[in-house]
Amino acid sequence: MNFRIILRILGVLLLVEGVAMLLALTVSVIYREYDQLAFLISAGINMLVGGTIFLLNRKVKPDIGRHEGYLIVSLVWVVFSLFGSLPYIISGAIPNFTNAFFETMSGFTTTGATILTDIEALPHGMLFWRSMTQWLGGMGIIVLSLAILPIFGIGGMQLFIAEVPGPTPDRISPRIRQTAKTLWGIYIIFTFTEAVLLWIAGMELFDAICHSFTTMATGGFSTKQASIAHWQSPVIHYIIIVFMFLAGTNFTLSYLAIKGKFNRVIKDEELRYYAIFVIGFTLIIATGLLITTEMGTHSAFRNSLFQVVSIITTTGYATADYLLWSPILTVLIFSLFFFGGSAGSTGGGIKIMRIVLLLKNSYYELRRIVHPHAIIPVKFNKHSVDTKIVTNVLAFFMFYFAIFAASTVLYTLIEPDLPSAMGAVATSLGNIGPGLGNVGPAETFVHVHPAGKWFLSFLMLLGRLELFTVLILFSPSFWKE
Amino acid sequence: MNFRIILRILGVLLLVEGVAMLLALTVSVIYREYDQLAFLISAGINMLVGGTIFLLNRKVKPDIGRHEGYLIVSLVWVVFSLFGSLPYIISGAIPNFTNAFFETMSGFTTTGATILTDIEALPHGMLFWRSMTQWLGGMGIIVLSLAILPIFGIGGMQLFIAEVPGPTPDRISPRIRQTAKTLWGIYIIFTFTEAVLLWIAGMELFDAICHSFTTMATGGFSTKQASIAHWQSPVIHYIIIVFMFLAGTNFTLSYLAIKGKFNRVIKDEELRYYAIFVIGFTLIIATGLLITTEMGTHSAFRNSLFQVVSIITTTGYATADYLLWSPILTVLIFSLFFFGGSAGSTGGGIKIMRIVLLLKNSYYELRRIVHPHAIIPVKFNKHSVDTKIVTNVLAFFMFYFAIFAASTVLYTLIEPDLPSAMGAVATSLGNIGPGLGNVGPAETFVHVHPAGKWFLSFLMLLGRLELFTVLILFSPSFWKE
Repeated sequence: MNFRIILRILGVLLLVEGVAMLLALTVSVIYREYDQLAFLISAGINMLVGGTIFLLNRKVKPDIGRHEGYLIVSLVWVVFSLFGSLPYIISGAIPNFTNAFFETMSGFTTTGATILTDIEALPHGMLFWRSMTQWLGGMGIIVLSLAILPIFGIGGMQLFIAEVPGPTPDRISPRIRQTAKTLWGIYIIFTFTEAVLLWIAGMELFDAICHSFTTMATGGFSTKQASIAHWQSPVIHYIIIVFMFLAGTNFTLSYLAIKGKFNRVIKDEELRYYAIFVIGFTLIIATGLLITTEMGTHSAFRNSLFQVVSIITTTGYATADYLLWSPILTVLIFSLFFFGGSAGSTGGGIKIMRIVLLLKNSYYELRRIVHPHAIIPVKFNKHSVDTKIVTNVLAFFMFYFAIFAASTVLYTLIEPDLPSAMGAVATSLGNIGPGLGNVGPAETFVHVHPAGKWFLSFLMLLGRLELFTVLILFSPSFWKE
Repeated sequence: MNFRIILRILGVLLLVEGVAMLLALTVSVIYREYDQLAFLISAGINMLVGGTIFLLNRKVKPDIGRHEGYLIVSLVWVVFSLFGSLPYIISGAIPNFTNAFFETMSGFTTTGATILTDIEALPHGMLFWRSMTQWLGGMGIIVLSLAILPIFGIGGMQLFIAEVPGPTPDRISPRIRQTAKTLWGIYIIFTFTEAVLLWIAGMELFDAICHSFTTMATGGFSTKQASIAHWQSPVIHYIIIVFMFLAGTNFTLSYLAIKGKFNRVIKDEELRYYAIFVIGFTLIIATGLLITTEMGTHSAFRNSLFQVVSIITTTGYATADYLLWSPILTVLIFSLFFFGGSAGSTGGGIKIMRIVLLLKNSYYELRRIVHPHAIIPVKFNKHSVDTKIVTNVLAFFMFYFAIFAASTVLYTLIEPDLPSAMGAVATSLGNIGPGLGNVGPAETFVHVHPAGKWFLSFLMLLGRLELFTVLILFSPSFWKE
C-alpha cells in the first residue's frame, strides 16, 4: 500500500475544499454577514493542512493501484466531512461537533438529512456552503477528482470502477480524464439551466442557485425549513421535478442526447423502467390522494409526482408530508426508499438497473424451471448479462438488506419505535433525507442521540460509496498484499 | 396438460383425507363429545367426492409430467383446506367459512396462525383434527403422496423437485418411493418419541400427542390458548426445544444419524450454521433479557432459547410474549422471521441453506473485487455451487422480498399499523404463526378483516410451496405447451 500517494492526493483535495470555502466566503462578503471570518479561518486551515501534506509527499512515485484507489475514496468523504464542518463550528451556526459533522456528511453524501430546526436563520454564506457540499459530493467528488487528479499525472480506470455507480458503466470515452470532464460539463450545464429557470419562475437568485446545486446532486438540502413547500408556484415544482428526474438518469444518456443520438437514449432499458416506475407510482399515489383527501386532481397529481420523483431519485425535497397521507400511501412511498436513481446518475440507493436485473432474473427463473434444459441468460439492453455481474448485483442486494436489517435492529437501542428506526436507517443508507415516524419530512434529526448521528453518518458513507468500496476495507484479503 | 390424471390423484388424496377424519372421529367417540356427527358427515363427503372423482378417471393413462406435478401440488393444498374445514363448520366449532378455511390452511401449511380465542372450549376430536392437519401438512402432503401415489403406479422425481424444500436435496435413496417411505418413517419415529417423552414429563397423553404432531410439523398449533406457556415444567420446554430443532434439520441428516454416520452429520455445513444462528441469537437475547428484565439466568436462557428455536424453525409456539420485551429484542426476534429451518426439514421461510449461500456469495464478492481475475465460486459442503443454483436462490430471495414488500403495502389497506402489517405478512409467508403488533403471540387473527384472512391464506400457500410452485402457474410459458 502506497500510503504517501494517498496522503498527497488527500492534500490536493483539501486544497480544493479550501478553494470551495473561499467561494462561500465571497457570498458571505456580498451579504456582509457575520460568517466571513469563519470561512476565512476554515479555508486557511484547509489550505495549510492540505498544502503541508501535499508538499511533504510531493516527490512520491505516482503509483496508484486498486488498493490505494479504494482507500482514497472512503477517506476523501470522511476527511472532507471533518474539515467541511469547520465553518459551521467556527461561526457558531452549528456549534456542536456531532451535529456539524452529521450535517456535513449528509451534505457530501448528498443525503439531505438535517439537524437544523431554523434553516432561514443561517447566514447566506453558510446556506451556500451547505448546498455546495451536496453539489461537490453530488456528481461524486471522485468525478471531480477524475478531472483534476490526472493533471497531477494520476489517473486510472480503477477509481472509475470504484466510484461510478452501477454494474456496467457505459463508457462515454475510453480516456478517463476526458470522461470526467465531459460528465462534469453536463453537470454544470444542467445546474446553470435549472438555476436560470428557477430564477425566471420567481425564486430569488440565491435560492435558485442553492436549489439547483442540491437538485442536480439529488441532495435535497433546501434554504427553507419548509423545503420546496415554501414556494406555491406549480411552475417551480415542475422545474424541480424535471431536473430531479434528469439528475436521476445516467449522465451518459444526457451526453448522448446532447450529441443528438436520441435513438440510443429512447432504447435504453434502464431509462424505460425508471420512467415506468415513476409513472406507475405517481398514478397509484395520485389516485389514492384523490380518494382519501380533499385535494383537487391537479394538486394530487403534482404532489404525488413530486414526492415520487424526489424519493426515487433519493433527492428528498418535500412539497407535502407523506406521513399525513393514508397509511398505504406512506408505505408505498417508503417502498420507494429501496429503489434509487439510475446507474451513472447522482442518485443513491440500490439503483434501477440492479432492481431490474434482479426482477428479470427472478422472472426468467420461472421459465428456467419450465424448461430445465434451456440456457436462459438475463438480457439487458439486448445483451446477455454475464453471470459475474448477476452474482455481483446479488451480493450488493444481499449486503444492502443485511445492513439495513442489522442496522435497524441496532438502531432500536436508541429509537424503540420500529417505523422511525427503519426510516432513519433506510433514508441514511439510501442517501435520501427524510424518513418515517419522528424523522419524517416535517421533522429533523436534531433529537437523535449523538451515537445515532454517528451511526447514521456511517450508513450515509456506506450507501454513497456503493457499499463495496467501504466494506472491502474490512475484508482481510484486501490487506494481505 | 393431462387434467384427468390430476383429478384422479386429487380423488385419491381426498379419500386419504377422509380416512384421517375417521381417525379424528375415533378420538371424538372416545371422549363422547358432540362433534362425532360432524366428523362422520365430513369424512363421508370427502370419500364420496374423492371416490367419485377417482372412479370417473380411473382408466386414465398414468402419464404425469412436470406440469401436472406442479399443478397437483398447489391444488392439493387448496382442496385439502377446503374439505378440511368441513368438520369445523358442520360441528359449529368455527361456524364462519372464512375463519374455518383460514384455520385449516394455517394447519395444512404448518403455519399455526389461529382465529380461535378459546381453544380449550373445543372438543377433543376437533383439537386432534386441528393438530393432524399440521402433521399431515408437515412433512409435506407430497411426501405422503410420494409414498402413496406410487402404489397407484404414479411416481417421478418431478414431484420431489417441486416440493422438497431447498436448492439441492441430498438424495437418501435413488428411488423416490423408498425415499418418501424412509423420511416418513423417521417422521413417525420422532413424533412417537416426542409424544412419549412429553407424556412422561407430565403432559396429558392427549396433549402430548397433539403437541408432538405440531412440533414435528413445525406447525405450532397448541391445545391451549396460552400455548406452551400453559406448562411451567422446564423439562417439557426442553423436550419441545429439542424436537423443534430436530424438525428444523434436514431429515436426510437424521437418517444418516440413525444409520450411525455421525461423521457426515457433524460435517454438514447447513447444520453448523443453523446451530450457530440458534446459539448466537439465544445468547444475545438471553443477555438482553437479563439486562432489561427481572428474569433469573436460567429462565432468561430458557425463554430466549425456546423463542429463538420456535421462530427460526417457523414453529411458532410461545412460552413468553416477545412483544413485551425491550424493542431491540423484539426486532431481533422479528429478524428471525426471515431465516426458516433447514432445506429438507418441515420448516418454512427462506431456509438456512439459502441464507448461507447468499451471505457466502456476498462475502466472496469482496474477494472477487480484490482479485478481479480470479474465479472464486461459492462453496458449500466443500463443493463448488453451480451458478445455476446461485441464480435460482437469488430469484427465490428476490421474489420473497418483493412479495413481502408488495403484500405489506397492500395489507396496510386493512391494517394501517405498519409493524402489525409487516408481522402478519411475514408470519404468513414464512409459515410461522405469531406476528407483531396486534397479531403478536398473545393475540389471534380473529379480528382481521375477511379479505385479509383470504390474502394471508394465499401467502401461507405461497410460502409453504417455496413460491415457485405457485408462481409458475402464473407464468405464461407454463401454459404454452
